[in-house]
Amino acid sequence: MPRGCPAAPGSARLCGVSRSAGWARSRARYPLGAGERAGAGFFGLRTSRANKTRGRAVAPSRPHSYCWGGWGGRGAEQPRRPAQMEPSSGSRDARPAVTPVAAVLPAGGSGERLGGATPKQFCAVQGRPLVSYTVRAMERISWISNIIVVVSPEKIEIMKSIIEKYDHRRVMIVKGGVTRHRSIFNGLKVFAENEFSNHLLQKPEVVIIHDAVRPFVEEDILSKVVMAAKEHGAAGAIRPLVSTVIASAADGCLDHSLERARYRASEMPQAFLFDLIYEAYQQCTDYDLDYGTECLHLALKYCKTNAKLVEGTTDLWKVTYKRDLYAAESIIKDNLSQQLCVITDVKEAVAQVGFLLHESLKSQIKVEAISIALSKNDSHLQNIFSGQCYNFVCVTDKKYAIQETQQLVDMLEKSNIPLLYPVVLILVHLDISENISFSIGMEELTRIKKFAREVKKQNILVYGLLIQYKDHLLLQETVNSAAALIMALIKDRNPELIGQLLVA
Amino acid sequence: MPRGCPAAPGSARLCGVSRSAGWARSRARYPLGAGERAGAGFFGLRTSRANKTRGRAVAPSRPHSYCWGGWGGRGAEQPRRPAQMEPSSGSRDARPAVTPVAAVLPAGGSGERLGGATPKQFCAVQGRPLVSYTVRAMERISWISNIIVVVSPEKIEIMKSIIEKYDHRRVMIVKGGVTRHRSIFNGLKVFAENEFSNHLLQKPEVVIIHDAVRPFVEEDILSKVVMAAKEHGAAGAIRPLVSTVIASAADGCLDHSLERARYRASEMPQAFLFDLIYEAYQQCTDYDLDYGTECLHLALKYCKTNAKLVEGTTDLWKVTYKRDLYAAESIIKDNLSQQLCVITDVKEAVAQVGFLLHESLKSQIKVEAISIALSKNDSHLQNIFSGQCYNFVCVTDKKYAIQETQQLVDMLEKSNIPLLYPVVLILVHLDISENISFSIGMEELTRIKKFAREVKKQNILVYGLLIQYKDHLLLQETVNSAAALIMALIKDRNPELIGQLLVA
Repeated sequence: MPRGCPAAPGSARLCGVSRSAGWARSRARYPLGAGERAGAGFFGLRTSRANKTRGRAVAPSRPHSYCWGGWGGRGAEQPRRPAQMEPSSGSRDARPAVTPVAAVLPAGGSGERLGGATPKQFCAVQGRPLVSYTVRAMERISWISNIIVVVSPEKIEIMKSIIEKYDHRRVMIVKGGVTRHRSIFNGLKVFAENEFSNHLLQKPEVVIIHDAVRPFVEEDILSKVVMAAKEHGAAGAIRPLVSTVIASAADGCLDHSLERARYRASEMPQAFLFDLIYEAYQQCTDYDLDYGTECLHLALKYCKTNAKLVEGTTDLWKVTYKRDLYAAESIIKDNLSQQLCVITDVKEAVAQVGFLLHESLKSQIKVEAISIALSKNDSHLQNIFSGQCYNFVCVTDKKYAIQETQQLVDMLEKSNIPLLYPVVLILVHLDISENISFSIGMEELTRIKKFAREVKKQNILVYGLLIQYKDHLLLQETVNSAAALIMALIKDRNPELIGQLLVA
Repeated sequence: MPRGCPAAPGSARLCGVSRSAGWARSRARYPLGAGERAGAGFFGLRTSRANKTRGRAVAPSRPHSYCWGGWGGRGAEQPRRPAQMEPSSGSRDARPAVTPVAAVLPAGGSGERLGGATPKQFCAVQGRPLVSYTVRAMERISWISNIIVVVSPEKIEIMKSIIEKYDHRRVMIVKGGVTRHRSIFNGLKVFAENEFSNHLLQKPEVVIIHDAVRPFVEEDILSKVVMAAKEHGAAGAIRPLVSTVIASAADGCLDHSLERARYRASEMPQAFLFDLIYEAYQQCTDYDLDYGTECLHLALKYCKTNAKLVEGTTDLWKVTYKRDLYAAESIIKDNLSQQLCVITDVKEAVAQVGFLLHESLKSQIKVEAISIALSKNDSHLQNIFSGQCYNFVCVTDKKYAIQETQQLVDMLEKSNIPLLYPVVLILVHLDISENISFSIGMEELTRIKKFAREVKKQNILVYGLLIQYKDHLLLQETVNSAAALIMALIKDRNPELIGQLLVA
């Protein structure tokens, strides 16, 4: 069974950034896949396998997203995005196909605790709604055949547009109920009750339940809870308590405090044998549906199943308050600034600066350096743009190489890289002239800013950076200063500073 | 009793930013202070009052910080920082002085959960260690007479340098024990056991216990827990649970889940009658001291005191993981970018642009606009620099008004504003020449960058911004673009971009 790439120590990993880090690399880390260890590979897509197209797990000629009440997404004839954007799809066929797994994401919360008008799952992080990150975290895992997003009725259209815009696949939208449990129950019904969908989905053996506001969930924990659910009937991720938990008496005073070490916080994801959790929901009282919060509790109460508890990582936390949105934004920016591609023109002076820049940057970030004739449509470039790098530095001695830049922009756009995350493109102009004064016409500045504004519509952030190559002795210092500015631009990804020309 | 300024809806407020927002404003919001409501004003500094100097609550000729084992900070003869930096000190005399209150801040944690080498309380946020923010949150409250920071032995020198650097007052450093409870106990001992300090502090009636990693604590909750402790013997802040709490059985499966609504997370601050909590710690078993985490539990177990539980705000959260540091950084940046001062030269064209800029900015940020003859040492300016504004925009038609800028920098430095937070100073150059090309000599650019690097050592971040005033019709658009750039610079406070010249 494939696993996600591990998080850097102490930091949550960005879901969906390592899009092509699929099966092959995972197997290198875990020579014996978890599924294999658990017995004859138990995941896969028995149901939709027969009639699925590459990268599309629902039946062909069906829309890739649905809504209770019936609306269609784009049809199956819609052209598929490049395969490299869907790491799992290419490798799925290599794995056993036995246990169907689906996921239900309750996304109906009102976001009261956030203190804003927009529910947190629809708040933008790096320009994209949080729920899209969570959907992507599920979608990139090939062995999850269907993703059911449950939203409140007034958010159905918004959710539909999110799925369209970010080209999410294998997703169905379902109308939520007035409480969390009622919403989850509605999500489960699409697998069991014809009336609840114009397209009854194949019932999964195991269903994952995961909050839409926990975007950083990794494949590793998902596979662990699914395996545990297969064995125990129910399973859920847990975390140590950060604060002591206390019970208050009626007078608002302390009644007793719990011994922190004996208790755990119940987090998400959780997984269940579908029949078991569906039965629990069917037997539920209205009180449970209206006031309960814990699915593991329902499995215990109605099906006498003691869920297996699986220790989760820190990145499972739930975006609840405004500070959590800040944290999510920073984590994503941090993850986006781990890798950089330096494209250098083949001319000698340029290549030298490109080399020094590479040396200066590589202690701070993973750098891939490529030297090409920029004006030609180099196949090297196309290879770069098929990876998972979100930062590009282009070094030339041309003053404002808008034409060459446009070529890079076109390739980026074709590559689909900017679809999910903003891409940073820094144009480094190496000035090797003898002028001691640097000058630009205002018209030229205006033209560059206008160009940057246009390109920003494609989610590409263009900045300019000038390196003066006058004094050989000072070159190293200038290059170090350029490297610091490049790192700052990449880490901040500030959309207001596009089209500006910085000086190293 | 004074209260802190309220948090903006949905966001935590920055402790210490509104430094001069003291007594007068608080009384305006709460016509009858909480202390008065609770009976004849119960806070104050009976102990150190008689011999305290203005703004210094410990005995004169004593160092303002100590350490168990005996080391001295700067002596009392040290010149005092300007009074406006200590909002509470000026107004303290106006309040009744009856109940001595002290605070103990355990800061001995190892930060394992953060995943880094530096314990979280010593991690820098906007360049300053987190513990300094928490100390400042206590220090700005005049009715807290002594602040005991308990740190592990190897951090004593670091803590000492933090107190020196940020000029914290009324602080004593105490050597921590191997566990949280042992550290708190050590902190309490300086009020009760001569051997534990070369300067036995006057025993407070009420002692606050607060984590060093909860920097956003407000005066309001502090006063609430102190009042409740005065009445009930013990009190602590609580928050609703974010996750359901569960108990696991020996086999790693769910035993039972707790009904979320019946339980609360026990947070900080907590407050106790000093004699009560000190007695509890004296009676404690080694097991309690080594494995316990909850002070309220000790008060209950050993003194039969059911602590009063006080509902706290979201900003009481504990910085535990790396994501919490990200969140703290963003909250502080957010709070620092609430107010802006636009200083405009008196010349006509400049004044017009200054006005338009003010109009464009005021929908996004609170703006104070001042028009002066920049070259003169205007008393207006000194008034500005005595406030709590951390962002300044200076509009002139001089190209690189380094001399004038130096004057502003000197005033800022004298004002002490950059001591705790980085100050942003944006030099807007209004170009009213007829040149269609904009040019700068590289030497000039280098000089500006060098100047910015020098000024940064004083915690002032200088950026340049060019506005071209050519086309009257385009002026509004250019000014809007300038306003967007100003907001971006203020919000980011990026130290790498100092000395750069942006173009609106």
